[in-house]
Amino acid sequence: MKQIVKILDGATGTILQNSGIAIPEIPETLNMTQPDLIESIARDYAKAGSQIVYANTFGASPLKFQNSSYSYKECIQSGIVLARKGAPACKIALDIGPLGQLMEPMGSFTFEEAYDQFKEIVLAGKEADLIVIETMSDLYETKAALLAAKEHSDLPVFVTMSFEENERTFTSCTLESMAKTLEALGANAIGFNCSIGPKQMIKMVEKLSTLTSLPIIAKPNAGLPDPSSGTYTMSASEFYEHMESLVEAGASYIGGCCGTSPIFIEQIAKLKGQQIAREEVDSGGWVCSPLYAFCTKGIHPIGERLNPTGKKRFQQALLEEDLDYIVSIALEQKEAGADLLDVNVGHPGVDEVKMLPKLVKRLQSVIDLPLMLDSSNPNALEAGARVYNGICALNSVSAEKKKMQEVMPIAQKYGCSLVCLCLDEEGIPNSAKKRVELAHRIAQQASQYLLSKNDLWFDPLTLTVSSQPDQAIETLDALKELSKEGYSCVLGVSNISFGLPARQMITQAFLAQSLYAGLNLPIINVNVDRYMDTIVSSRLLLNEDLKAQKYIERFHALKAEPQKAMETLSL
Amino acid sequence: MKQIVKILDGATGTILQNSGIAIPEIPETLNMTQPDLIESIARDYAKAGSQIVYANTFGASPLKFQNSSYSYKECIQSGIVLARKGAPACKIALDIGPLGQLMEPMGSFTFEEAYDQFKEIVLAGKEADLIVIETMSDLYETKAALLAAKEHSDLPVFVTMSFEENERTFTSCTLESMAKTLEALGANAIGFNCSIGPKQMIKMVEKLSTLTSLPIIAKPNAGLPDPSSGTYTMSASEFYEHMESLVEAGASYIGGCCGTSPIFIEQIAKLKGQQIAREEVDSGGWVCSPLYAFCTKGIHPIGERLNPTGKKRFQQALLEEDLDYIVSIALEQKEAGADLLDVNVGHPGVDEVKMLPKLVKRLQSVIDLPLMLDSSNPNALEAGARVYNGICALNSVSAEKKKMQEVMPIAQKYGCSLVCLCLDEEGIPNSAKKRVELAHRIAQQASQYLLSKNDLWFDPLTLTVSSQPDQAIETLDALKELSKEGYSCVLGVSNISFGLPARQMITQAFLAQSLYAGLNLPIINVNVDRYMDTIVSSRLLLNEDLKAQKYIERFHALKAEPQKAMETLSL
Ligand SMILES: [Zn+2]
Ligand SMILES: [Zn+2]
Ligand SMILES: [Zn+2]
Repeated sequence: MKQIVKILDGATGTILQNSGIAIPEIPETLNMTQPDLIESIARDYAKAGSQIVYANTFGASPLKFQNSSYSYKECIQSGIVLARKGAPACKIALDIGPLGQLMEPMGSFTFEEAYDQFKEIVLAGKEADLIVIETMSDLYETKAALLAAKEHSDLPVFVTMSFEENERTFTSCTLESMAKTLEALGANAIGFNCSIGPKQMIKMVEKLSTLTSLPIIAKPNAGLPDPSSGTYTMSASEFYEHMESLVEAGASYIGGCCGTSPIFIEQIAKLKGQQIAREEVDSGGWVCSPLYAFCTKGIHPIGERLNPTGKKRFQQALLEEDLDYIVSIALEQKEAGADLLDVNVGHPGVDEVKMLPKLVKRLQSVIDLPLMLDSSNPNALEAGARVYNGICALNSVSAEKKKMQEVMPIAQKYGCSLVCLCLDEEGIPNSAKKRVELAHRIAQQASQYLLSKNDLWFDPLTLTVSSQPDQAIETLDALKELSKEGYSCVLGVSNISFGLPARQMITQAFLAQSLYAGLNLPIINVNVDRYMDTIVSSRLLLNEDLKAQKYIERFHALKAEPQKAMETLSL
Repeated sequence: MKQIVKILDGATGTILQNSGIAIPEIPETLNMTQPDLIESIARDYAKAGSQIVYANTFGASPLKFQNSSYSYKECIQSGIVLARKGAPACKIALDIGPLGQLMEPMGSFTFEEAYDQFKEIVLAGKEADLIVIETMSDLYETKAALLAAKEHSDLPVFVTMSFEENERTFTSCTLESMAKTLEALGANAIGFNCSIGPKQMIKMVEKLSTLTSLPIIAKPNAGLPDPSSGTYTMSASEFYEHMESLVEAGASYIGGCCGTSPIFIEQIAKLKGQQIAREEVDSGGWVCSPLYAFCTKGIHPIGERLNPTGKKRFQQALLEEDLDYIVSIALEQKEAGADLLDVNVGHPGVDEVKMLPKLVKRLQSVIDLPLMLDSSNPNALEAGARVYNGICALNSVSAEKKKMQEVMPIAQKYGCSLVCLCLDEEGIPNSAKKRVELAHRIAQQASQYLLSKNDLWFDPLTLTVSSQPDQAIETLDALKELSKEGYSCVLGVSNISFGLPARQMITQAFLAQSLYAGLNLPIINVNVDRYMDTIVSSRLLLNEDLKAQKYIERFHALKAEPQKAMETLSL
């Protein structure tokens, strides 16, 4: 895969500072008060070689302008007009920065409020050629901006976040979560700007290029600021040298942030038009919270306990909106080793469309595990997926036509992985072969919604072995076939033992067998030690536990701790 | 498959009684003292329609003749001559009955002593057209006779045993064990004689016809004797009616025993030449003791603990020939649910060729589970298989040429199932595919020894997952393929966890996975509850536990018995 190097612009603020004028509290008002200066900056960058020039709209939002004598709208519009006048041959970007508010859960600024701000900015900037969302450090705010851009504009959207040298943003978002979430939500190019210099960015661009096939943006500062003066001292030619390495590492949209000026752009413009080779990276197959992302190809237990079915206390908590109780169950599951939590609030008297997003917000405020939203109500799934901070999974669709039409667009829009039940209008087929056929039917339909193979997690369905003793093998054989075809497989394991004594015994055996057959996403009560014992053992058996590290970590002390093993007795 | 009804003769004793002569202590001396009478009996049966006439040799043995003025040899020889003179158009059978000694372990008469007697009888009767071994009730004595016949004659050998109405012989041998053992040892036709009437024999012949494809012999008494007089009162025409049903049930060699006479044979001769349809029955794939036989197609745990490797106490017991200790281990394994016991006596200072048969005799005298003889010494395997009362399994052969040439003839001769290790001179291949290829190589070689598909139990070999983490999957995948091809699979499971803490955890998971993959003969420490829990659970999951009976039997009381679960803690 080839990509062509394109040149972005450098800093605006740095030039304004150097120009000697007094910079107002809202720098975007300069679009009204100093239009010639603003136009000249664009002109200088165009002359220096920029192909894309960012309009002076970075901080313009309804919120910031509420006490200004200018409107955010006129400043955004004139910012774009001035940039285009100064750089008529360039693409002009509507530049969107952070809103300057602390988002929930750290602050009180809600996802919906952020979305509304970004929506107005996007609508005001519709004369631009593209939208850039930049200098973001909060994934949640970034999602609000990207969602607003996608929903109110057809322009390409570039997104860059500001990472520290520890490869986290200021709010601790990881590289994986950033890359996978932004790609899932439909960004057209992603990368980094500000915060660090080009040298510090190299390793991150290298990593990013293994996480996405999207064009990578690198718009670093002119090195790190001098600690005493706070000014940038890197020369344009040194900047160029590092930028050359960044291009080698995979960046194809390159420019500068704080401390850079047209002479820096003039230098890096030498790289313009260069072809770079990129590896194709599989899309889909990830779920993530800002702090924690995982590819679903390995074995990952999914906690089943956030579900009111048959649980009186949980039902009561839902009806009384006692979310503390639900959070405590979530934390127990994390503690026990869950990688993902299923969240189901379906119960008579509960409005799922309201409750699911509410609970999602609450859960993600205290727990960093990704979530799997579980509802038969597509509106509830959409409401939950919308406010989820990262990539969640949706549980579930099936081969029923109506289901597919309702749920697949939600998965497409929010980049969710999708649990696909191998059943249709006729019910659950009684053979592995027919369940696999339904899986193929679902996959075909899903491709129309641009859902990739990795986005689809097939569930060949567990029947109760005491009432249908010939069906456990069919489920196992379906797992075997689906996993052979490269799909992730999900299964609610516990149903196997319904109605039998000592349910954990047979559930444990079925779990081990399912994991070998190809189940990688078991939905299970992770708080039962014997199930996690089986998962940890199976990871080692299936060569997913390098040097038996996790196995030894779990079990090395077992002999010395009889009370540990005792927990496995509660049948 | 079609078989043709052939007519045997009726009783000799009954006619002698009716003739009014005094019957001597050894009736076979009549061949010397009353040759005309003996000849006339053969003539009468030939006239009545018999195609096979049994010579008057039933009780002739060196042992019985040791105080006689005649020799067993001359009596046997003249018995055959007289029968042939009386019935020149018939096949004449050397008739061999029980030796009248209580065999070990009930009595003190050894297998080897019995064998020697039968050998002399067979050698003396070599002018016959076939050998019939009849009225047997002890499987061990029958094996000695059949082995002697096979080793000292090329004549066809027919074997009938005397079953009671409860479908057991006097020594409790079952129908399955009788059928499978005699077929495995090379009998040419098998069935029943004496003890019961034709009516009582029908159900047994029906059952037998599902157990073997061999021609079935039915030679019942003339009904049950009158309890007061001890005489047989069934009429020849009633006898005929039942015999017609016996032929319908699958018998193709028909005749009469006590109470029958030429008029009975005249009646049943109407059935001569009739074609009967028989279902083809798979050969091989069974192991059995006299009381207990099982087809290896289902899941059957094999106890691993009769093995000195790494067990000081066991080593000591072997060196001191403290077989009581070894028997106690065997009994523990039976109690815990083993279906088969592996027996290995390989240890420095132990002469396996002597010790293995000695231990086999001891074990089979107290425990009714079939045995699997485990040795790298082919002579030890042969010595053990020879004295085993039933069908044992041999552990093991491999794809090594020398091994195959040494071990396969033993399996062929004694009808043993054969553990086949998927390794060759180069060692253990590192892929499932190559292990399966070795299995095919072994199977091809085995066919030259007339070993059937069912006789071969493939062992794709368990490597230690901590040192070879990619190999567990290869073993599992090899099981999957071999079982798909219809083979029984055997595996020493415990080796998977060597060198790890909490070995039982991972062994248990691997066991469950192996059972789904296709392992049906796990070699395991059956005394570890969690392994048997897994086996019982897996039987249900793999649809081998009708109505979850065995599962519920094992687990229904678990909640009420915490001390039961406690046993699982000893890791
Ligand atoms: Zn900056
Ligand atoms: Zn009789
Ligand atoms: Zn008789």
